[in-house]
Amino acid sequence: MAPPIITLTTDYGQNDHLVGAVKGAILKVNPDVHIVDICHSVMPFDILDGALTIGNAYRWFPPKTVHLVVVDPGVGTQRRPLLVAADTYWMVAPDNGVLSMVYEREERLSVRHVTAEHYYLQPVSNTFHGRDIFAPVAAWMTKSWAAASFGEEITDYVKFSMPKPKKEGATVKGVVLKVDYFGNLTTNIPAEDVPQLLTGQTAFKLTVAGKEVTKFVQAYSQGSQGEAFALIGSSGYVEISINKGNAARALGAQRGVEVAVQLG
Amino acid sequence: MAPPIITLTTDYGQNDHLVGAVKGAILKVNPDVHIVDICHSVMPFDILDGALTIGNAYRWFPPKTVHLVVVDPGVGTQRRPLLVAADTYWMVAPDNGVLSMVYEREERLSVRHVTAEHYYLQPVSNTFHGRDIFAPVAAWMTKSWAAASFGEEITDYVKFSMPKPKKEGATVKGVVLKVDYFGNLTTNIPAEDVPQLLTGQTAFKLTVAGKEVTKFVQAYSQGSQGEAFALIGSSGYVEISINKGNAARALGAQRGVEVAVQLG
Amino acid sequence: MAPPIITLTTDYGQNDHLVGAVKGAILKVNPDVHIVDICHSVMPFDILDGALTIGNAYRWFPPKTVHLVVVDPGVGTQRRPLLVAADTYWMVAPDNGVLSMVYEREERLSVRHVTAEHYYLQPVSNTFHGRDIFAPVAAWMTKSWAAASFGEEITDYVKFSMPKPKKEGATVKGVVLKVDYFGNLTTNIPAEDVPQLLTGQTAFKLTVAGKEVTKFVQAYSQGSQGEAFALIGSSGYVEISINKGNAARALGAQRGVEVAVQLG
Repeated sequence: MAPPIITLTTDYGQNDHLVGAVKGAILKVNPDVHIVDICHSVMPFDILDGALTIGNAYRWFPPKTVHLVVVDPGVGTQRRPLLVAADTYWMVAPDNGVLSMVYEREERLSVRHVTAEHYYLQPVSNTFHGRDIFAPVAAWMTKSWAAASFGEEITDYVKFSMPKPKKEGATVKGVVLKVDYFGNLTTNIPAEDVPQLLTGQTAFKLTVAGKEVTKFVQAYSQGSQGEAFALIGSSGYVEISINKGNAARALGAQRGVEVAVQLG
Repeated sequence: MAPPIITLTTDYGQNDHLVGAVKGAILKVNPDVHIVDICHSVMPFDILDGALTIGNAYRWFPPKTVHLVVVDPGVGTQRRPLLVAADTYWMVAPDNGVLSMVYEREERLSVRHVTAEHYYLQPVSNTFHGRDIFAPVAAWMTKSWAAASFGEEITDYVKFSMPKPKKEGATVKGVVLKVDYFGNLTTNIPAEDVPQLLTGQTAFKLTVAGKEVTKFVQAYSQGSQGEAFALIGSSGYVEISINKGNAARALGAQRGVEVAVQLG
Repeated sequence: MAPPIITLTTDYGQNDHLVGAVKGAILKVNPDVHIVDICHSVMPFDILDGALTIGNAYRWFPPKTVHLVVVDPGVGTQRRPLLVAADTYWMVAPDNGVLSMVYEREERLSVRHVTAEHYYLQPVSNTFHGRDIFAPVAAWMTKSWAAASFGEEITDYVKFSMPKPKKEGATVKGVVLKVDYFGNLTTNIPAEDVPQLLTGQTAFKLTVAGKEVTKFVQAYSQGSQGEAFALIGSSGYVEISINKGNAARALGAQRGVEVAVQLG
């Protein structure tokens, strides 16, 4: 039988012992767990960035994977710890909206408020619930798979709307949600909102940070070197890139910048 | 039976093949090992930073975990490789003081000078003992658990005192030991040294980098946005933070900066 | 039986979900795989840097390890996906030369063009073959070990020559191939090309970025503090370093800079 999988998505960074302590706390409860790092460089305290990271990653894992997500500016307050069943996946996270993209995507959802404190690592600190609450809860889950024993189901969990693009006539207005390691700008404009773009049936003009992009390609390498272009990224959204270049730097565009796609 | 665990704490960084080669050298000896990264961003050559990282992480792991710690500016010289039994844990590290925080915390200690060169990866280089000595020693240990076969016990191992705070009347003077990913400043002043602070029974003034902090909170989110405050961090020491902000940047304070807490 | 090992070497960085999605795609096919990160900070699109990273790491792993290497500026084009048998190792990578250092080192080589699309994650995106092609191919390989089922052998795979040093009389001219986390400058000049240096039988002068280095040592700690020196690094090449210092910064030298070693 394959080992149970717990993935980690946090804003702890990797320059100290924090991530190590979380991993230890998991293995202390269940040394058979296969721990898989998704990302520890979520922008500090940034619930939207955390929501995007886990939202784009969780479905690629096998059923029954437990995703541990800790972006937790409210640590030490009354914000609730959650155990979520989302289709075939499990999530352990603070109740602050960091699972909003998961909530948006899944119809089969069950959200529990974790109250079974005997699963916690005692004494619980005020500043590190990743180690003291979330890690042991995730690990105990992989031993028992008895979700009901962790707490009651709730329906008033915190959920925010992921930023949506707006249509204004022939223009779709969105925003840059993420800049990746290559400098590609990922927007929140899904391929479905710009079908003419994909089929090449129309001219278009994309405006970002005062710069214009008028070329659409299928793959990065189809762009000329140094020239910015648009394409559909691997998560299904419009992306602005430069072949073998850094679009964020070249265009002076960062996360949060507006993007307008004018069709026709 | 759960797989044996070897954790890695190094100053190798993550931009080349070094960490990969260490992992390979472990798995070549024992492919059943579960390798767990604690941190590879220890400040280069910085034995104190390494001592803090492993010192704050090791106890959260299950008994019998083997902690491999390689911060090793003396690689290639006569400094000894060590195999240490510390309570229920094992440590493999160079004899340069990088385990000092472990030595301070553990009463049940046995320190061996590793001399059994048949466990090494031959030929041993002069510059990469992490791969050629420490990795295979840790891996062989998880196969045999026969510590005595690695070398004789010694008592003259290198140990330095972790920097201690000083009391001068009503003032406790310490130092910033670490800046984490959030910009929180971790000091070396333990909660026990400032009991009045915790109970809120007294006014206090904390001075760091020429700035004053007069607010104490239980959890990060209790601070007003933009305002610096003190709290007790997850390892039990006074920490200076800003709610959803970067205290290091805002206060212009870095590692090594003095901290004075004036009580009453 | 030990779990099968798949290592990851990519230029995806670690600030988003990309690496997580690759790991998930592997585990979805074979949840028993032990995933080992080698490096995700290969310089973006930089095939030479990727070739060096995997080239210096792969041989330290146990036989039968599957090395997944994704530095793939040509993603979405007709560049072929490869499954390579190199001595006792397996490699899955794009056919763009990123395995050139492996090809140079191994006499027992079999290179297959992967065409068995039923192993892919459908639908295959144009921008993320790491997740959609390379990850599942590597994972299916660890289930079947039936290389022939993935595609036909080819001989016209892309291979470039790793940059070689030139001898001009008593001078050997090379180049800095890599700067590590410590700031050490790794060159492409192998120890065999400068035997007099190793035995100390001759004076020498190394020139890099307009600076001269005339000291040769066996180990980093033999250098005086602040003074640049040469030594043979752990992969067998001439390296320029400073004891407890950052040679790249001190000498103003980066990757690609020429290095000349004048002997006698």
